[in-house]
Order: sequence, then C-alpha cells, then structure tokens
Amino acid sequence: SDQGNGDASGLESPLSGFKTTTVLRDSAREKNMFIHGKLNDQEAVIILEKTPIREDILLELFRCSRLNLDMSNDIYRTYQLQPPAHLNEIKTTVICPATEKHVKKYQLQETYLVEESGEDYRSITLPYIQSQSFSVQWVYNILDKKAEAERIVYEDPDQELGFVLLPDFKWDQKQLNDLYLIAIVHRRDIKSLRDLNVLHLPLLINIRKKGEENIFKRYGVTANKLKVYLHYQPSYYHLHVHFTALSYEAPGCGVERAHLLSDVIQNIQLDYEYYQSRSLSFPLRADDGLLSKFREAGRL
Amino acid sequence: SDQGNGDASGLESPLSGFKTTTVLRDSAREKNMFIHGKLNDQEAVIILEKTPIREDILLELFRCSRLNLDMSNDIYRTYQLQPPAHLNEIKTTVICPATEKHVKKYQLQETYLVEESGEDYRSITLPYIQSQSFSVQWVYNILDKKAEAERIVYEDPDQELGFVLLPDFKWDQKQLNDLYLIAIVHRRDIKSLRDLNVLHLPLLINIRKKGEENIFKRYGVTANKLKVYLHYQPSYYHLHVHFTALSYEAPGCGVERAHLLSDVIQNIQLDYEYYQSRSLSFPLRADDGLLSKFREAGRL
Repeated sequence: SDQGNGDASGLESPLSGFKTTTVLRDSAREKNMFIHGKLNDQEAVIILEKTPIREDILLELFRCSRLNLDMSNDIYRTYQLQPPAHLNEIKTTVICPATEKHVKKYQLQETYLVEESGEDYRSITLPYIQSQSFSVQWVYNILDKKAEAERIVYEDPDQELGFVLLPDFKWDQKQLNDLYLIAIVHRRDIKSLRDLNVLHLPLLINIRKKGEENIFKRYGVTANKLKVYLHYQPSYYHLHVHFTALSYEAPGCGVERAHLLSDVIQNIQLDYEYYQSRSLSFPLRADDGLLSKFREAGRL
Repeated sequence: SDQGNGDASGLESPLSGFKTTTVLRDSAREKNMFIHGKLNDQEAVIILEKTPIREDILLELFRCSRLNLDMSNDIYRTYQLQPPAHLNEIKTTVICPATEKHVKKYQLQETYLVEESGEDYRSITLPYIQSQSFSVQWVYNILDKKAEAERIVYEDPDQELGFVLLPDFKWDQKQLNDLYLIAIVHRRDIKSLRDLNVLHLPLLINIRKKGEENIFKRYGVTANKLKVYLHYQPSYYHLHVHFTALSYEAPGCGVERAHLLSDVIQNIQLDYEYYQSRSLSFPLRADDGLLSKFREAGRL
C-alpha cells in the first residue's frame, strides 16, 4: 500500500531530529500534546492532536485493523485496536523557529479564583482596566460596518437598546451543535457586567428577546436549545452577550466565569445595584496583570 | 515488526463482520464514537476512543512516522503524521449482545433548557420528585457509616451544621488536576437549592469553610484553586455540595446547571427567600420524566 504502513522505511522523517525539552501541556480528554524542544538546533514547538473518528472509514477500520484483546466477560470485551496508519493520523503543527512568546502561549498556566467585592472592583480592577487602555477599536469597526459587515446576522440599529448579532470566530457555521453567536451593544459606555444597573434592563431584555428570535429565524434553533450568558471578566471591555448551543461546552461557559442573562435580569430586578455591590468570583491566569494587582492589594 | 503494520494480513479481525446501523454519538473534541450495529447477527454497541498521547513514546513517534505535509509558511507547518500502528491504538469496547437499554444509554439525548419559576417548582417539580420517591438510602448508608466509611476524608458530626466529605466516584485520586469531592449534609430535610433559606446560612458557611480547610489539609490544594458549587437539578434530592479543581471541567460545572456556593450564600443574605421566589434555568434530557411534566403544564 502506498498509504504507508508507518515505518517509513528508508525515509528520514523531517521531525526525526526533534529533541523534547518539555511537555508544555497535554489533555487526556482531548488527546493532544504541546511540546517544546529543539529541531535541528532551532527552538520549536510541536502540537500533536489525534484526529476525530470519521464515520466513512468505519468499514475499513473494522476489516483491516489488528485487535489485541484486553478483557472479556459475558457481554463486554475491550481491545486495543491498531488501525492501518492512513486511517489514524495525528494532526501535527510545527512552529519553528519558536519564540519565547510561542512557548508561553502554550504553557499550562496556573489559574486562581479571585473573589472581587464591589470595593475591590472600584479600587483594583477599574483602575487596572483604565491604565491598560485596552483598545476596542475592532468592536467599533464592526458597529460602524467598517469590518465584518457581511457577517452580521441581525442588527437592531437603535443606539440605546440596539445591538449587532454575528457568529463568533470560533464557530465555522458548518453545523449547529457548536452554534456560537455574539451580540455586541451599540452603546459604548458599558464596560462589563459590573456596570449594569436598573437603567439597562430594557437593553438586556431587548437583547435576549431579539437575539433568540433572530437565531430561530436564521438557524431554526429555539430559545430552549440555547444558553445565553455574559462573561466576567470579559475578554474585552465593551458589553457583549454570548449565545451558544445548549449542549455545546464552549470555553468560558463554566460557572466560574459565565452569568446567564436570565439570572442577570432577575438579579437587577431584585436589587437595582446588585452588580455594583456583589462579590463576583472569576479565574485569572498566573500571568494576568490583574492578578498581580489583587496580590499587591493583599486580596489573594 | 511483530507489532503489526495494521493490515493484519491473513488474519480475520473479530470485528470484520460488524455492520453499522447508526452512529449513536461522537465527539470531535474527545475523539470518540459510539456505534450501534450487528456483529454476526447479534445486536452490538461498539465504543471507539483514541488513546491519550504519551510522553514516553515521543522519540519513537518522531523517528518512525510518515509525515504528509499539509501547509507551510515561514514559521508554521502542518502535517498529517502516520505513526506506526502500535504507537497509536484505539481503545475499543464491544458490548454484545446489546439490549435496547445499552443503545439508549449511549444515544445522544436532546436536552432542553427549562426555566422553572418558584410556582413551577411547587406545582410541577416538587410533586414529581415526591411521586417518584427517589431513594437516597445509599446516602443514609454513608452518613450512618454503613458504607464507604473508609473513604471519608473529613466529617463534622454536628447534626444541624455538619457534613461528610468524601471523594466523588469519578475521581480516582491519582492526580490533583481532576480533584473532585462531595460534601453531604447530615440533615435529611433539605432536598435541593430550592429549599435553602436564611435558616441554612450557618450550614452553608460551615460547609464552605471546613470543606476548604480540610481539602487543604489532606491534599494541599488552597481555596483559590477550587470551585465549590451545587447542582440544580441535583442528581439526588439530599443536599450536597461539589468541590472540584478550579481548572477541571467536571461534567455539570457549566453555568446552566451549577451554582457557586459563594453566590448562593450572598443571594440568601440579600433576599432570605431568594431560592423560593426565583426562576432557575436548567437542562433536562428528552427522556426525563420531569420534562414531560413541564410539557404537559404548557411550560415548554
């Protein structure tokens, strides 16, 4: 077979000179590994990820694999199956020469849960956000139709209550089970959940209602198949709301970072200043500048 | 090589007679697939799951694999790597003969987000829970030390404020990155989050404080590396609290099902009857009896 039996006889593999320095990160669940090392004396990062199992190869897989029996009882048997190499590839990304930044990017970062009181927000987080002057120009470009105009799924142009709804970049729009859209508000004066109060209830209710309606119109997905939430901390400080498929475990949909829009609305209805007075918990990576600020303030 | 090159020449694979009826479920993220079909005229379910990448095989993997170049620019290159078959096995579980129950167990179940008001709880959910008379005898056996006594990590024996802390069965205790413990309260009159009110604040505060202290004592994991939460709906109606490693994406830690204990405490401090009056959202599987009750009541 010219598909290769995996021993690549006579051929020098372009990675055979790779020497591992350290495994930066790996996931037994996702079957991937991020490795730092040297390739022919240059710094390199190699990312290995096993490929998803495809339905169209099952027939050949069951016919042409070697099976080693592990365990067997009356109805259960487990095997180690060794498929022909061309049916079981590993996606391999080589970054070479790699910089310190590449290495850091893939390194497993410790995260710490911070419990931020309303006072912590005003004395630590807000000054930090302001000092960093994070740019949200790319958001303004979307709102002004200078970028990504063709990607917009729906717009409510009202400058007080309106928003733009568009697919998140993580979603390739090829299937609905990882549906992911973002609603970005037209107002430019709301940084995050922390700023929301009773005056914003009409905005939040409008986003929920029209976001759900228009996702149904465009994709046929009903509101009870969606989760709709905000991140705190958000990844950029211009108010936006995440709409994802209910069963999709999107990054950042965990209880430690996500806040259901339905809860946010009810909390503000109960206490108009709920999000100014409450302690909010969220994770921060060890290399996040905000974490240093909490540490300096003795709040970690 | 006697490790097999994957084409198993001359050998009849025990699965070569398998005929796929349908793919019950698969995960591109986890690289697994659950398949229903027939094996030699018997009903069968086959579970395929690619194996995690191991550090100890990297040297051989880079030396002895065939590489097909996909894409290349100045610093990034991607390949499809075809390893020797023995370095890239697929864990295969065969259930045969399989019953209808096996098939149903592995079938992807649609889930629906239900928004349960306080009134819905009293008129739909509570009567349903009571009618099912779900047994929590196994919980009482733990509290009474009739079962799993040797697994208990910590106990506060106080009958009002106390609880038993023990590892969840999903955690094999071999590594800390998926640490998972459960605190089960001694009181037998609290079914779930819905029952919690101001009278339970001392209990909740005690669980948080002593749970965190004793996880640190036993495992050296500090409170800021943990997430501590309740499920709603819970999987059994006797109050219990989940303690998991912060970075571990445990099943059920998503915003649609988990409630941080720190939030629960603050919410009750703000409104003594917060969890009796609030609408709570949670997912229900299509085959869950409670979902039918919501549907019958026109609440879905």
